[in-house]
Amino acid sequence: MEPLVSIIMGSTSDLSVMEKAAQILNELEIPFEINALSAHRTPEEVREFAIGAASRGIKVIIAAAGMAAHLPGVIASMTPVPVIGVPIKASLEGFDSILSILQMPPGTPVATVGVNAALNAGILAAQIIGAGNPEVIKAVVAYKETLKKKIVEANEELKKVKYPYKTN
Amino acid sequence: MEPLVSIIMGSTSDLSVMEKAAQILNELEIPFEINALSAHRTPEEVREFAIGAASRGIKVIIAAAGMAAHLPGVIASMTPVPVIGVPIKASLEGFDSILSILQMPPGTPVATVGVNAALNAGILAAQIIGAGNPEVIKAVVAYKETLKKKIVEANEELKKVKYPYKTN
Amino acid sequence: MEPLVSIIMGSTSDLSVMEKAAQILNELEIPFEINALSAHRTPEEVREFAIGAASRGIKVIIAAAGMAAHLPGVIASMTPVPVIGVPIKASLEGFDSILSILQMPPGTPVATVGVNAALNAGILAAQIIGAGNPEVIKAVVAYKETLKKKIVEANEELKKVKYPYKTN
Amino acid sequence: MEPLVSIIMGSTSDLSVMEKAAQILNELEIPFEINALSAHRTPEEVREFAIGAASRGIKVIIAAAGMAAHLPGVIASMTPVPVIGVPIKASLEGFDSILSILQMPPGTPVATVGVNAALNAGILAAQIIGAGNPEVIKAVVAYKETLKKKIVEANEELKKVKYPYKTN
Amino acid sequence: MEPLVSIIMGSTSDLSVMEKAAQILNELEIPFEINALSAHRTPEEVREFAIGAASRGIKVIIAAAGMAAHLPGVIASMTPVPVIGVPIKASLEGFDSILSILQMPPGTPVATVGVNAALNAGILAAQIIGAGNPEVIKAVVAYKETLKKKIVEANEELKKVKYPYKTN
Amino acid sequence: MEPLVSIIMGSTSDLSVMEKAAQILNELEIPFEINALSAHRTPEEVREFAIGAASRGIKVIIAAAGMAAHLPGVIASMTPVPVIGVPIKASLEGFDSILSILQMPPGTPVATVGVNAALNAGILAAQIIGAGNPEVIKAVVAYKETLKKKIVEANEELKKVKYPYKTN
Amino acid sequence: MEPLVSIIMGSTSDLSVMEKAAQILNELEIPFEINALSAHRTPEEVREFAIGAASRGIKVIIAAAGMAAHLPGVIASMTPVPVIGVPIKASLEGFDSILSILQMPPGTPVATVGVNAALNAGILAAQIIGAGNPEVIKAVVAYKETLKKKIVEANEELKKVKYPYKTN
Amino acid sequence: MEPLVSIIMGSTSDLSVMEKAAQILNELEIPFEINALSAHRTPEEVREFAIGAASRGIKVIIAAAGMAAHLPGVIASMTPVPVIGVPIKASLEGFDSILSILQMPPGTPVATVGVNAALNAGILAAQIIGAGNPEVIKAVVAYKETLKKKIVEANEELKKVKYPYKTN
Repeated sequence: MEPLVSIIMGSTSDLSVMEKAAQILNELEIPFEINALSAHRTPEEVREFAIGAASRGIKVIIAAAGMAAHLPGVIASMTPVPVIGVPIKASLEGFDSILSILQMPPGTPVATVGVNAALNAGILAAQIIGAGNPEVIKAVVAYKETLKKKIVEANEELKKVKYPYKTN
Repeated sequence: MEPLVSIIMGSTSDLSVMEKAAQILNELEIPFEINALSAHRTPEEVREFAIGAASRGIKVIIAAAGMAAHLPGVIASMTPVPVIGVPIKASLEGFDSILSILQMPPGTPVATVGVNAALNAGILAAQIIGAGNPEVIKAVVAYKETLKKKIVEANEELKKVKYPYKTN
Repeated sequence: MEPLVSIIMGSTSDLSVMEKAAQILNELEIPFEINALSAHRTPEEVREFAIGAASRGIKVIIAAAGMAAHLPGVIASMTPVPVIGVPIKASLEGFDSILSILQMPPGTPVATVGVNAALNAGILAAQIIGAGNPEVIKAVVAYKETLKKKIVEANEELKKVKYPYKTN
Repeated sequence: MEPLVSIIMGSTSDLSVMEKAAQILNELEIPFEINALSAHRTPEEVREFAIGAASRGIKVIIAAAGMAAHLPGVIASMTPVPVIGVPIKASLEGFDSILSILQMPPGTPVATVGVNAALNAGILAAQIIGAGNPEVIKAVVAYKETLKKKIVEANEELKKVKYPYKTN
Repeated sequence: MEPLVSIIMGSTSDLSVMEKAAQILNELEIPFEINALSAHRTPEEVREFAIGAASRGIKVIIAAAGMAAHLPGVIASMTPVPVIGVPIKASLEGFDSILSILQMPPGTPVATVGVNAALNAGILAAQIIGAGNPEVIKAVVAYKETLKKKIVEANEELKKVKYPYKTN
Repeated sequence: MEPLVSIIMGSTSDLSVMEKAAQILNELEIPFEINALSAHRTPEEVREFAIGAASRGIKVIIAAAGMAAHLPGVIASMTPVPVIGVPIKASLEGFDSILSILQMPPGTPVATVGVNAALNAGILAAQIIGAGNPEVIKAVVAYKETLKKKIVEANEELKKVKYPYKTN
Repeated sequence: MEPLVSIIMGSTSDLSVMEKAAQILNELEIPFEINALSAHRTPEEVREFAIGAASRGIKVIIAAAGMAAHLPGVIASMTPVPVIGVPIKASLEGFDSILSILQMPPGTPVATVGVNAALNAGILAAQIIGAGNPEVIKAVVAYKETLKKKIVEANEELKKVKYPYKTN
Repeated sequence: MEPLVSIIMGSTSDLSVMEKAAQILNELEIPFEINALSAHRTPEEVREFAIGAASRGIKVIIAAAGMAAHLPGVIASMTPVPVIGVPIKASLEGFDSILSILQMPPGTPVATVGVNAALNAGILAAQIIGAGNPEVIKAVVAYKETLKKKIVEANEELKKVKYPYKTN
């Protein structure tokens, strides 16, 4: 089983956030790999990874980093594989990582999701894989149904909260 | 020729920004369509569009909007097709549209690019199409080569700038 | 007893904030209902709710959401009933939800209150109901008197704090 | 003809922004008045205005101010009439007036609209009047239809833009 | 003993911050009073206070408030006595109260100090009293000497921290 | 005639902003001086100025600077004379100078006014002088009356604007 | 052994952050000294320190301060020795100290590192010393190798995390 | 003549800003080179440059870039030569480039100067060279004297501005 999605994080301390990406990919049955590589501490390893990703069959890269988060952009500069950037909140409420990932200059896009939004990164990766694979799209749709059910059920609980002037 | 990418903008006044997305898709020979639909003025038309996009063969949606920019997220809530969000700078330096598009809650990602980054949205759309189409990837790689050449040539010009203590 | 105010929240996790809106409406004896509906997870239910609100006799909608908070604006796009938006602080100190609710484009206003300001949303809803109902205005005025009394009494306590050079 | 809506602005220099509120109220045939009163230069006049508004039959107040914009909140502290606050952009991109109006403490809400959003303030005033007046609601709905038509027509123009790979 | 400085806070919950202003005024032997008055809950009491302050011999007013903090500006609009504004951090890291107090429009200044900077407000009040009273200036200078001594002594402790390559 | 107020600016390029402080002091008949001294280019001159200000009879210092604006705080660290800080907008919308002046650490307050608020700095200086001089207070009160008159007259003009549904 | 680097902090409360600078300089065997001096409480001591630094053989100064952080800029205005500024997070998420240090006006640079980035300040000081000392450069390179090793080893641990669809 | 300083910019459009760095290095008689290299368009060229800089005798690198500005950090990850980062203002008032350069993670510092602060970058480079070269320090000190003279002379002009109550 060859990985289709590669999750990269700038530090293993990001794992507690990023495991949600792993879990959803696993749930959607999309093969993936996880590595910790730092744009600044291991630039050669990042380069080797990025240059080789396409030929290894990687279809989407999810790259997470905090502070002056260069990892997603650096990878995107070395591969035509679409890169999803996850800004990690490590300082300044996460504004530094958001802007460092989002505001890529013309020619090198990074598909940025919200701060710490690992789950959304995983779903987006599945949607991209799904562009060429109807089975994956079906799995995404089914997953979204479960999210909908949860809130519909939670709403039933909400109706049980009683006030004299509450009418439902 | 059926469109693979659908560009939606919240107002035709966004066209001057978004035409760069159209130009790059055209240059990469990816069939696309453009429409102006407003999440707030034409919610029914947006819904119809979003629900029908997948079955019409749309593989990627590029949605652009300014201010409290709901268009990308609203579309993303109604389709499994990946949505690229382009925050348009209309007020507050664009911080309102950036945050309104980027910070999607868990379950409904939008692949956000930088403020007014229509060119990057087009390239990202091509990269996503390319995940299932090696020809498109080749076109993206070739396009990036032209960008590289431009800066290499510009650097040659820069070397001609002379100061007594400048050594190149 | 038919509800005049409808409180909608994007997630039941917002209840701890939003119960202050319920409490003040109850105290002011204005019939209300509460539901949890997500603009992104249950768009069809939101649409059905919004389109039907006016004919069910709803006079004001209070919609609360966090992050890229689209719920108030999406509802406002589908009904002429005035919508009060409550930005929930879930990330980025609440700046994302403030801007996502406040900065609505021309044509679709949302009456935005402060971050997590559920009490103020309830009072504002009562003031709007009161525009056509003098009894409700009286109740609002009486409630504001109780707030005034509290601070006047607290000031009496403050006078008991003693320093040699404090003169009151 | 007695006014139902009162537009107050902190300075006559705000008129170029606020005339959109006057125009839409006029178009919706809602009687209104306009005054320039400053919370800081004419506090007594503001107080007199606020205390007397309800008994004069004013149903909604639209108050606009820039910088440390206290006018809407000061008025709201002296009347049970709902106050719509319009932050005027005069410095700091408008962030100062947004926060000075939006972040009202518990007990005294201001229904805040976006920066310079005079049109939306007028529409919101009409929606509030409409809570007790079905004719006004009808006028609002009709007005929103005209906005919708404009974008639908603009979209027709957009379809005429041609690129070789554009399919609509 | 008549008060020269009047400390006003928007809520008694601000006392834990503002007691530092009381302590330093007491230490500098400047008579003062403290009251809790809210610009929004007790506007009449605030007005009465502001209009009467000068004739009661108040030379400086210290006004503290959080969120959309109107108290200092409202008082400043009704008295020629200089008003020192203390932004209280209650939400949004204090940016709302900073901007609501600092950015006063032309004609009505508020002497703003840093967020929660009650001690500095007290010192500044003393400096203003001192403009016409050399004894107070002496007390301020003496107090600043104690602050200097503290850091000079702390530095002696710092020198005792040892590392092999630390030379002092 | 000895100066009571000393206006210092970090660069003569700030004169176009700061001349409003000079004009109002002149109008209020308060003797003043103006100098350009830079905290960073002429630190010795700044020190000499600050140390000598009190003994020369200076009662208030107005210090204006942009960017990382250290001038007001540096002066305040060397004199017991109250220092009014004017943040000049030179970059980043003025947020850098606001925070560099406002957020002084405990022990060394600067009385900060709004960005570019030279007029307010002049009025505040007069109010501080006035704490020990009733004539100056009278001049301030009279000046504020002229501001009030201006807006009252402007309001008369506003009443002449006509719309069919405008009632005043 | 004479110090080459001088670490200055505005308050001994900054020591818990700044000890990382001491530790790395010690590890790289670069002689250093540490002092607590406040730009605002001990301006004379700061001046004496700054003016004398170069002649004492100090090659780099690391200056740390929070809030309106003037210490690095004040020192830089009095010495040609390069000054590294460390913004300490004490309020406003650190934005105040960042801007107070970073945005120095033309003529007086401060080499600013990230908020609380004491370790990076120490490494940067070593790199500057290294510009004239190849031994120090070697030590820096060796240190960076240890950082790289740590993440490479952490990555080995990461590979042991197992999911059914995880492929590495 | 071999270069000691290397100026790199991410785009030749940054030249109008960065030429001030070239001019001051030239004035201080420090040999330098200028190149345009993009972290994202020409990553291989950047890598080759960074890896080879030390052995070519480069003592300081000045790297300028805008938006999500990765160039300074990417170079710093590949060389022990100190890197000065210049955030270019291209969008969002420059906050994106400031944070992308300043907030480098532990282990890889960038000596950041203010937004567009090319002159300061040049002076800082000279100060770093000067750490091992007393002649350069002398040139820096002499240059700073010229800056001081300019403001002293400008102050003489300021004294000629006359108002009746201006005393100097």
